[in-house]
Amino acid sequence: MTGKLLDESAKGVYVIAATPFTESGEVDFDSVDSLTDFYIDQGVHGMTVLGVMGEAPKLTDSEQTELMQRYIKRVGGRVPVIVGVSNPGIDNLAALSKASMDAGAAGVMVAGIGGLKTDEQVLGYFDKVMSKLDDATPVCLQDYPPTTTVYFSNAVINRLITDHPRIKMFKHEDCPGHRKLTALRNAPDTEGVRRVSILTGNGGLYVPQELRRGADGIMTGFAFIGSLVKVYELFAEGKADEAEDLFDLYLPLIRHEQQFGFGLALRKESLRRLGALSCPLARAPGPAMDADDTKELEALFDRLRAKLQDAGEPVPDGI
Amino acid sequence: MTGKLLDESAKGVYVIAATPFTESGEVDFDSVDSLTDFYIDQGVHGMTVLGVMGEAPKLTDSEQTELMQRYIKRVGGRVPVIVGVSNPGIDNLAALSKASMDAGAAGVMVAGIGGLKTDEQVLGYFDKVMSKLDDATPVCLQDYPPTTTVYFSNAVINRLITDHPRIKMFKHEDCPGHRKLTALRNAPDTEGVRRVSILTGNGGLYVPQELRRGADGIMTGFAFIGSLVKVYELFAEGKADEAEDLFDLYLPLIRHEQQFGFGLALRKESLRRLGALSCPLARAPGPAMDADDTKELEALFDRLRAKLQDAGEPVPDGI
Amino acid sequence: MTGKLLDESAKGVYVIAATPFTESGEVDFDSVDSLTDFYIDQGVHGMTVLGVMGEAPKLTDSEQTELMQRYIKRVGGRVPVIVGVSNPGIDNLAALSKASMDAGAAGVMVAGIGGLKTDEQVLGYFDKVMSKLDDATPVCLQDYPPTTTVYFSNAVINRLITDHPRIKMFKHEDCPGHRKLTALRNAPDTEGVRRVSILTGNGGLYVPQELRRGADGIMTGFAFIGSLVKVYELFAEGKADEAEDLFDLYLPLIRHEQQFGFGLALRKESLRRLGALSCPLARAPGPAMDADDTKELEALFDRLRAKLQDAGEPVPDGI
Amino acid sequence: MTGKLLDESAKGVYVIAATPFTESGEVDFDSVDSLTDFYIDQGVHGMTVLGVMGEAPKLTDSEQTELMQRYIKRVGGRVPVIVGVSNPGIDNLAALSKASMDAGAAGVMVAGIGGLKTDEQVLGYFDKVMSKLDDATPVCLQDYPPTTTVYFSNAVINRLITDHPRIKMFKHEDCPGHRKLTALRNAPDTEGVRRVSILTGNGGLYVPQELRRGADGIMTGFAFIGSLVKVYELFAEGKADEAEDLFDLYLPLIRHEQQFGFGLALRKESLRRLGALSCPLARAPGPAMDADDTKELEALFDRLRAKLQDAGEPVPDGI
Repeated sequence: MTGKLLDESAKGVYVIAATPFTESGEVDFDSVDSLTDFYIDQGVHGMTVLGVMGEAPKLTDSEQTELMQRYIKRVGGRVPVIVGVSNPGIDNLAALSKASMDAGAAGVMVAGIGGLKTDEQVLGYFDKVMSKLDDATPVCLQDYPPTTTVYFSNAVINRLITDHPRIKMFKHEDCPGHRKLTALRNAPDTEGVRRVSILTGNGGLYVPQELRRGADGIMTGFAFIGSLVKVYELFAEGKADEAEDLFDLYLPLIRHEQQFGFGLALRKESLRRLGALSCPLARAPGPAMDADDTKELEALFDRLRAKLQDAGEPVPDGI
Repeated sequence: MTGKLLDESAKGVYVIAATPFTESGEVDFDSVDSLTDFYIDQGVHGMTVLGVMGEAPKLTDSEQTELMQRYIKRVGGRVPVIVGVSNPGIDNLAALSKASMDAGAAGVMVAGIGGLKTDEQVLGYFDKVMSKLDDATPVCLQDYPPTTTVYFSNAVINRLITDHPRIKMFKHEDCPGHRKLTALRNAPDTEGVRRVSILTGNGGLYVPQELRRGADGIMTGFAFIGSLVKVYELFAEGKADEAEDLFDLYLPLIRHEQQFGFGLALRKESLRRLGALSCPLARAPGPAMDADDTKELEALFDRLRAKLQDAGEPVPDGI
Repeated sequence: MTGKLLDESAKGVYVIAATPFTESGEVDFDSVDSLTDFYIDQGVHGMTVLGVMGEAPKLTDSEQTELMQRYIKRVGGRVPVIVGVSNPGIDNLAALSKASMDAGAAGVMVAGIGGLKTDEQVLGYFDKVMSKLDDATPVCLQDYPPTTTVYFSNAVINRLITDHPRIKMFKHEDCPGHRKLTALRNAPDTEGVRRVSILTGNGGLYVPQELRRGADGIMTGFAFIGSLVKVYELFAEGKADEAEDLFDLYLPLIRHEQQFGFGLALRKESLRRLGALSCPLARAPGPAMDADDTKELEALFDRLRAKLQDAGEPVPDGI
Repeated sequence: MTGKLLDESAKGVYVIAATPFTESGEVDFDSVDSLTDFYIDQGVHGMTVLGVMGEAPKLTDSEQTELMQRYIKRVGGRVPVIVGVSNPGIDNLAALSKASMDAGAAGVMVAGIGGLKTDEQVLGYFDKVMSKLDDATPVCLQDYPPTTTVYFSNAVINRLITDHPRIKMFKHEDCPGHRKLTALRNAPDTEGVRRVSILTGNGGLYVPQELRRGADGIMTGFAFIGSLVKVYELFAEGKADEAEDLFDLYLPLIRHEQQFGFGLALRKESLRRLGALSCPLARAPGPAMDADDTKELEALFDRLRAKLQDAGEPVPDGI
């Protein structure tokens, strides 16, 4: 099966898919299907599976492969699917990349690996990675220092884009990162670097500012992803302020989900309430909510509902 | 000069004071006075000077002392002043503590120091610190892992509170930290620990949730500190939802200022526009805004102004 | 197949086995056999496979399982085999533990996982881990902060030993750690904690001091492992100074191999020259030697040879 | 008072001076004098004061200044003195630099500051630093990642050397760092970079390898610094193997002192026994030896004495 490959024109909202588990901790493939349909129903323009938020490091190799295949199959070409393939071993990374492209992925996402410090170490690592990937495999380069502890300078990013034509997309998740985003966005003009797609992360916390600075879209796992789709579309239509008004209604929840590590529990519980998956369990050792957390989340839902109604915006089912 | 000493009943909004510099990088004592008056005019219940945000590590010892004295003198007993005294050397810490109490401070704030890893290392460090402080010096224990890289478990915090009666206040700034806050708040009931004042930080990003969980107040440097004073007071009057409505109007800016490191530049520029200080310079190596950053901040001000007007809330002068 | 299980009386030298690869990066099972025979021929009292130095995170799950089985089969009960099972996911950890015990392992080795900061977080993590392991699975608790970034206080270690009877061995690798070692060694007397086996790591850099402080043995991957076996045995015979004399002859090489990360390349090249494996490749992204490194290593070999001859000690074949 | 300024031809052993305190924690100026004389008597070619090992961050600004002046005065031009001036604030750094040069220092030593990640951040920081220093101030650039958490690539180092003619010396202390050292040493030939002096650190653990790779000398605080002077001189005379023989006699102690953080206590106690200072206290929070540590150190001294006598080498007085 072959889908459309990722290219530099990619834009919109690429949701980072959660990995649903059953109560006993098995991958819940039925919920993989319902979650896929939910995301697509919310209007996402693409999906990213096996990301950090997808608990990929807690899956076995065979679970990773099976899960990736199931997602791609269920999507059925409706939107492009990017597969997170980062791994301590480059051979493993390459094997999952190949399996993903064989299964119909649009591309793979690769981050740095712990221990890379200087620019030359980062460049050297990606040279090794790229030498093991098929020329035809599109790559999204992921810049996520809070988890990877790897820092990419703009010089490094532009050099990687230049040296490796396979890089079609840049996932921007350094924070603070607004100025970096502007410089990267302008690099085609100021430095003659090839223009690639730039999607932003950080849980969506700075979406309006990032879109105003020229990002092509958003890649995050916020449970109410449909709201970001609408924010993106309003921006695309030139209605930036209207977009930010809508964004601000959801900002209290975006901020709440952005709690590092713990946010995953909130996100999965929200997705459960939205009918997207059956069980909010995160695999051990993973976060879990207690009674106070639930009450707090429900209070935020109550407020969101009221504010959406006041604003004449649709209220998501389930909250 | 002796002011009222900090005790366990402290509550409200303790603003973390910026340190104003002139264009040439000297401490701007005139602006220290105007900033003090601004904060008090905004209704703060206390002030914390020489915090991390106050660029204390970039001041000389004598600048620290002189600045602390000037703040305390200008405050003139109108609100309690806490002095941040953390230092790589415990002797230096103790000397500044003594000078601060002599000058009329209400207490001192102490964080952990890099390199403390286990519970026993943290306890051992504070035993050493406390042995060098005068018995009559009230202490605010600061829990700020993003900067200190020291992590306090609740067991450690409760043990410190029990072992050291001088600890009157706990600055809660671990993140995610909601569950920790609840457990600490309940510790007097569940574990018989002495009840101390708990103020929360993290730039104010989670104030409504933290107040609902029982925090006694807020200690942060958000430029629009008057808004948090009002949020606090509405909560104190039992109007939690009204308080959170107001908070949500400021949330886009709170989030914006919360950018680690860079937020200081935004904060000082905002304080300048509010008439609180003359020059927004942060000492080298410090962050600075560029033209895009300024435009972005002004756009957020424009939106804030419009939303405040819509809500019938007063618009701060200067934005 | 069932071997003898690890218990608290374990002592001697447990070598951390390298993982041999072919030139093309496949696991080299023939060299697994020759390496096993080499280690046993050197007199080791036990083997640890799938450790960090064994490049376990760069193997697929099925490679890990197959490699573990091959090692255990080749050892054939001659010495106990401990299997490193640390994994970001506890389910994966438990599955490999079960497979290892089924294959005849003597026990499993478990370290902390990134992100554990306070004592209660560490204790909570191991409670979860232990709840997923079979009661009959002996555990070696690994304390290796340079890689895990997790710090165990003695209070935590003693509590884990008390709460989890499965813990039979402690791998001591905190550094500086001499005082910690002494306190742990004395804990059965001073605190009534169950006495477990303590083996020390850190590449063997402090073996004489650690044995004098009461360690039961050594767990490291030093290529000239036979020298440490002899050092251990001399100590056991009460000839501590003679043991340290021998140790000091090898110290320049121990120090050389101890270079973090890069040491693996030196170690595998040394093992190749000793005839223990065919190809010194470390899997990507792994360290590799250049011409200067080779010359430097050979110079150290030349000096070692001369010093051993002067001292009337046997010279290892191949260097 | 003006001494000879540091230039690119510097070589030999620059000892990093300890800071002696009295039992009550005051700077012990008498011991500053005796320590200075001791170092010079040991034959050092230069001294570095106010380094990390000199506990500079635990001194007040005025103590730093007074200590620096005392050292320089006592040295009296017999050897060049480099002053460590690293500071969280660049203004403080510049002020201490100026005071040092005014007092007769040969140059200043500057390291990176926490938070610098990418090459461009490192370059940007040093541009700011250099812009605040007098053109005539010679600089030793210090590369010490274990403490600073800043990593310099060779590209960055060569760029800094090129951009800033004031940089006369490079303190090499990255580890593993042998390959880096070789590339830096060759850079004048391979890349046309100005040749600067390269001294190596890491407690001296790799001195023979580093001298063979072209280092111009050693900058470390090893208590038995005279042994490294002799090692250096033998190398300079072309007697590399003889030099390494002597080095290996001291290697057990070098390794022992190299224990991160704790090594300072060992070093000061050794200096006390050598008659160089009166009291081994490190300022709080600093390391201290216990009875086991003392016994262990004495056992190492006993062994050293015996080995030196066997080798016909002089035994330092006091051990």
